[in-house]
Amino acid sequence: MMNAADNELLVRTNAGTPMGEYFRRYWLPVALSKEMPAPDSAPIRVKVMGEELVAFRDTEGRVGLVEPRCAHRGSSLFFGRNEECGLRCVHHGWKYDVEGKCVDMPNVEPDAGMRGKISIKAYPTREFGELVWAYFGPREIMPELPQLEHGLLPASQRYVTKRLQQCNWAQSMDGAVDTAHFSFLHMPAPAFKSNSAANIAADEKRIGWLRQDPMPRFTILDHDVGFVVGGARKADGRDLYWRITQFMLPTHSITPSAMPGEVYYGYTWVPVDDESCWIYVYGWHPDRAITADERAKFDKGGYGQFAELGPGYLPLRNRSNDYLIDREEQKTLSFTGVRGIAEQDTLAQESQGVIADRTKEHLTATDIGVVHFRRLMIKEARALRDGREPAAAKLHESYRLRSGGAVLSSDLSFEEVMKKRFGSSTGKVS
Amino acid sequence: MMNAADNELLVRTNAGTPMGEYFRRYWLPVALSKEMPAPDSAPIRVKVMGEELVAFRDTEGRVGLVEPRCAHRGSSLFFGRNEECGLRCVHHGWKYDVEGKCVDMPNVEPDAGMRGKISIKAYPTREFGELVWAYFGPREIMPELPQLEHGLLPASQRYVTKRLQQCNWAQSMDGAVDTAHFSFLHMPAPAFKSNSAANIAADEKRIGWLRQDPMPRFTILDHDVGFVVGGARKADGRDLYWRITQFMLPTHSITPSAMPGEVYYGYTWVPVDDESCWIYVYGWHPDRAITADERAKFDKGGYGQFAELGPGYLPLRNRSNDYLIDREEQKTLSFTGVRGIAEQDTLAQESQGVIADRTKEHLTATDIGVVHFRRLMIKEARALRDGREPAAAKLHESYRLRSGGAVLSSDLSFEEVMKKRFGSSTGKVS
Amino acid sequence: MMNAADNELLVRTNAGTPMGEYFRRYWLPVALSKEMPAPDSAPIRVKVMGEELVAFRDTEGRVGLVEPRCAHRGSSLFFGRNEECGLRCVHHGWKYDVEGKCVDMPNVEPDAGMRGKISIKAYPTREFGELVWAYFGPREIMPELPQLEHGLLPASQRYVTKRLQQCNWAQSMDGAVDTAHFSFLHMPAPAFKSNSAANIAADEKRIGWLRQDPMPRFTILDHDVGFVVGGARKADGRDLYWRITQFMLPTHSITPSAMPGEVYYGYTWVPVDDESCWIYVYGWHPDRAITADERAKFDKGGYGQFAELGPGYLPLRNRSNDYLIDREEQKTLSFTGVRGIAEQDTLAQESQGVIADRTKEHLTATDIGVVHFRRLMIKEARALRDGREPAAAKLHESYRLRSGGAVLSSDLSFEEVMKKRFGSSTGKVS
Repeated sequence: MMNAADNELLVRTNAGTPMGEYFRRYWLPVALSKEMPAPDSAPIRVKVMGEELVAFRDTEGRVGLVEPRCAHRGSSLFFGRNEECGLRCVHHGWKYDVEGKCVDMPNVEPDAGMRGKISIKAYPTREFGELVWAYFGPREIMPELPQLEHGLLPASQRYVTKRLQQCNWAQSMDGAVDTAHFSFLHMPAPAFKSNSAANIAADEKRIGWLRQDPMPRFTILDHDVGFVVGGARKADGRDLYWRITQFMLPTHSITPSAMPGEVYYGYTWVPVDDESCWIYVYGWHPDRAITADERAKFDKGGYGQFAELGPGYLPLRNRSNDYLIDREEQKTLSFTGVRGIAEQDTLAQESQGVIADRTKEHLTATDIGVVHFRRLMIKEARALRDGREPAAAKLHESYRLRSGGAVLSSDLSFEEVMKKRFGSSTGKVS
Repeated sequence: MMNAADNELLVRTNAGTPMGEYFRRYWLPVALSKEMPAPDSAPIRVKVMGEELVAFRDTEGRVGLVEPRCAHRGSSLFFGRNEECGLRCVHHGWKYDVEGKCVDMPNVEPDAGMRGKISIKAYPTREFGELVWAYFGPREIMPELPQLEHGLLPASQRYVTKRLQQCNWAQSMDGAVDTAHFSFLHMPAPAFKSNSAANIAADEKRIGWLRQDPMPRFTILDHDVGFVVGGARKADGRDLYWRITQFMLPTHSITPSAMPGEVYYGYTWVPVDDESCWIYVYGWHPDRAITADERAKFDKGGYGQFAELGPGYLPLRNRSNDYLIDREEQKTLSFTGVRGIAEQDTLAQESQGVIADRTKEHLTATDIGVVHFRRLMIKEARALRDGREPAAAKLHESYRLRSGGAVLSSDLSFEEVMKKRFGSSTGKVS
Repeated sequence: MMNAADNELLVRTNAGTPMGEYFRRYWLPVALSKEMPAPDSAPIRVKVMGEELVAFRDTEGRVGLVEPRCAHRGSSLFFGRNEECGLRCVHHGWKYDVEGKCVDMPNVEPDAGMRGKISIKAYPTREFGELVWAYFGPREIMPELPQLEHGLLPASQRYVTKRLQQCNWAQSMDGAVDTAHFSFLHMPAPAFKSNSAANIAADEKRIGWLRQDPMPRFTILDHDVGFVVGGARKADGRDLYWRITQFMLPTHSITPSAMPGEVYYGYTWVPVDDESCWIYVYGWHPDRAITADERAKFDKGGYGQFAELGPGYLPLRNRSNDYLIDREEQKTLSFTGVRGIAEQDTLAQESQGVIADRTKEHLTATDIGVVHFRRLMIKEARALRDGREPAAAKLHESYRLRSGGAVLSSDLSFEEVMKKRFGSSTGKVS
């Protein structure tokens, strides 16, 4: 259980809030690269941590991220004409480059004093892993991009998308470090014996282990950019089925699903405002291309970490339609009656309220990952508020991490499991 | 005319308000029984007096009415799995019985201290007259269910439904004790001579009396659970056409329409919040079954007290579409141009505003029923606030009442009319 | 740049605000005459400067504009029956004439004291130029109707409509006195050479002058009911292309488009509330009828000053659908990618925000008309607040004005241009 002040500190990220300032020390994804597919393609609206912005790709392929109001009379630059290395307001033709500098004022005398002195707010951007990243913090301490593994690979070896979640970011992040819910939320209905249906999480063996042991034992190892948490369930014989999750500051996670040789999956959360967030979702394979068949399944959605998406990257099964819950399927097919692992997560997280009230919880031993995450975030945000800059923001190389599943002897400690499965105790890619 | 403070006292029923606390001394309908048609059928959302709840029928047919948040991490129990005598949260599997007790915690150690000690808020429920009733007050003074006549009869002799009204409960209740509006709101257009159209209230004779006498004389008789009000209009010769209405605390009414041998109709109002309410509507015949033909008409709606309903029991003709008013029909067919008695009432009541402002009224002699109702409610709510529990809540037998219409000699007093028409001066069924 | 207090003073027009009181010294259009096409036709809802009203045309053709609540019990008179020189409430039959007097109370005794003493709020109305005008100010100083030229002509010589704009009135009025935006907002795309497309503002010659000179020189002449502003651009040889606009207190304008012999166009803005406004739009020709072909084009919309309208006079291309901007057309056809001059204006104005924040502007020499308008409005509203009644309200004859375009020698002063083009330095019709 958390006090109300800590809950507020955790969830609020608008400019000026402690957590908001903390987030502003890190690069954050703000769009998919493909949302601005070509030079001079259409500008898009971007809203990040309560701030409304416009992004555009200029004639040379650079991405600008600027405030949407023209400095002249305030018309929206979203409707601007993206042309010849700048976004031109359609009202009287003022034009801005990707750094927000006003580079043309057709209705201003050539010798007027205001020429060359007008800028609108602009944030630095980078592209990495088919994501557009932006940095909202002080320029003098701007770090490098976090070297997430999917971004370091050839495009053929990754798949990147996003989806809109209609609740606060932190309760969705909670779900990522909580592998205990797998024993219910993503299970087939108790009466359901086969695993042939698309909305079942893993193969029959794993389903059996998850179902039989709803109380995994957790071990947490802190590292320099977050922590890795392992949840161990009884498997066959003396073996344990480990589900291992990475958490990287401020909002990155790698899922516990990948068994050796399988595709890895990661998430990054970015608040739209306090009541909704983007979840950037990526799959990657370090050793081979993502196949056409895999891409087709990811595109279609309702498959693994990928929701079935409608317009605006909003899942088709969402809060407004009760996730199309089918009460008959809930009796006979899946525990929730909702199709899709991602959609099931969304249901569980969004239904906690638009902003979850953590003061009324009754936490258990299996919530240890959640508790660890929350304490770390609050500690970090408070430290910054007290003048201590976050160390992790500078450690971009430390983000080359993996996590996933493993079935190994119960004689091994979690550190030994990590070394055996990933080659290092933290999951760092060597 | 009412002062603003009294208006506020009358209309507000959230927890902690004087009228809200008064309502919480009585059993109130919260759903139709058929909304949870079978053991382990789908849970439903219920909102009563501003409080959001979930109702479910368990494996043994009992109805639970509980707060919607799981005590563990707060996910909504509306999405819960209704199974084996309990509602199980789909997130981590905590399970609650109809009394709100957490009876299973799969992710908690068998010897953990929290086991057996966790409950969520739950309210007692009963079923009576095909309605699910709940009690929201102090358990130690919980009364019996009010013995409304329709609930005492075999199911074949009654018909029960509900509809959503998009305004405060009290202005809709106002309409029930005001028979004067019949001379306008439910009349054919002045030019319209026949009574063949479906949206006309009664037979040609009654229409004539109602139309010719827009100023009925009212008599009120108080009784132990409310009052009965008679409105007398000139009929043929020396006769009077009496329209007699029951009001029973806190929000029950029986309509003045039934002539001897006809079906009786009653209403119960239950606030969803201060800006909308449910109207439970029931028809019953003490002596015979409701016929298949009658049921078909009630089901279809736009007939007598029964509105034509769309999804969610919202009338098809509602505030959002101006009740599909047809201005040509308003000239030639009916006084309102809106089809359906229930819909006409809804128009008149909702158009007073979401919460009617009674400080600007100019009341007349024909508003005596309305005034009597309001004064009684305010007096009762103030009495409770001052520590005097409502007597009517305990008098469940006194709710076996009838009212309706009669055509009798003007020599008879209202008490004599009541005795002649219903066998007792209060309308009590013997 | 404006301070926040002045911005507030400029934009707010609800009762009790300085600008609201100022507006209430003038007659304002509140509906098109054709919205109430015949005696006893259906009442309509009208909302003006935050006040909700009902308008109806009575049996004798007079228009009533009254508060919508029946004085008896508050049901809405919008649903009233419009009959025999009055609007009758459908609830209990109280009836009101066009002056708001309650002329029938069927449920009140003939000798009751309240008879003849009940009124609801009503405002005086007039019809002029196919518009229904109302006056909301003190009766003792009620002026005459402003004698706008289109209202003085036979109906055959004018065309009148309206459209809903979803932003504050003042930023839309700003657009009317700013001819500089024509060089961008209404231009073909730079690559587009022909003027054959429907969404191009004028003929090829004018397009060329507008495009080549985005910095017109402005001259302003004050007159007794506002001011006339001329914007001069280089035309061929030594000629100037003048675009001349009238502004008349409080919210009338005549456009700068009409060349000699062409149709004139005017606008009047009326706030619905602070976040939306009606724009009444009229075209007229002093010397000939509007042709059937012209009327067909105006009816269809997306032509000149006439937007393509959907239900409720809301443009089909509006804020909710990003004006159906076509980014391909923005590259190849028009500067905005939005079809229709009126729609382009709407985009530019609405995108400044629901209420534009003038404290963040950077104004230029071409914003002189805008600045002049704002200063005048603020000065006038402050004067009234300080007890000085507006002089212009009494000068109804001074509203017979014209403006438009002219191509004349650069040797002529603006006054000489006005005399040559309109016969007087102010544009007054003699």
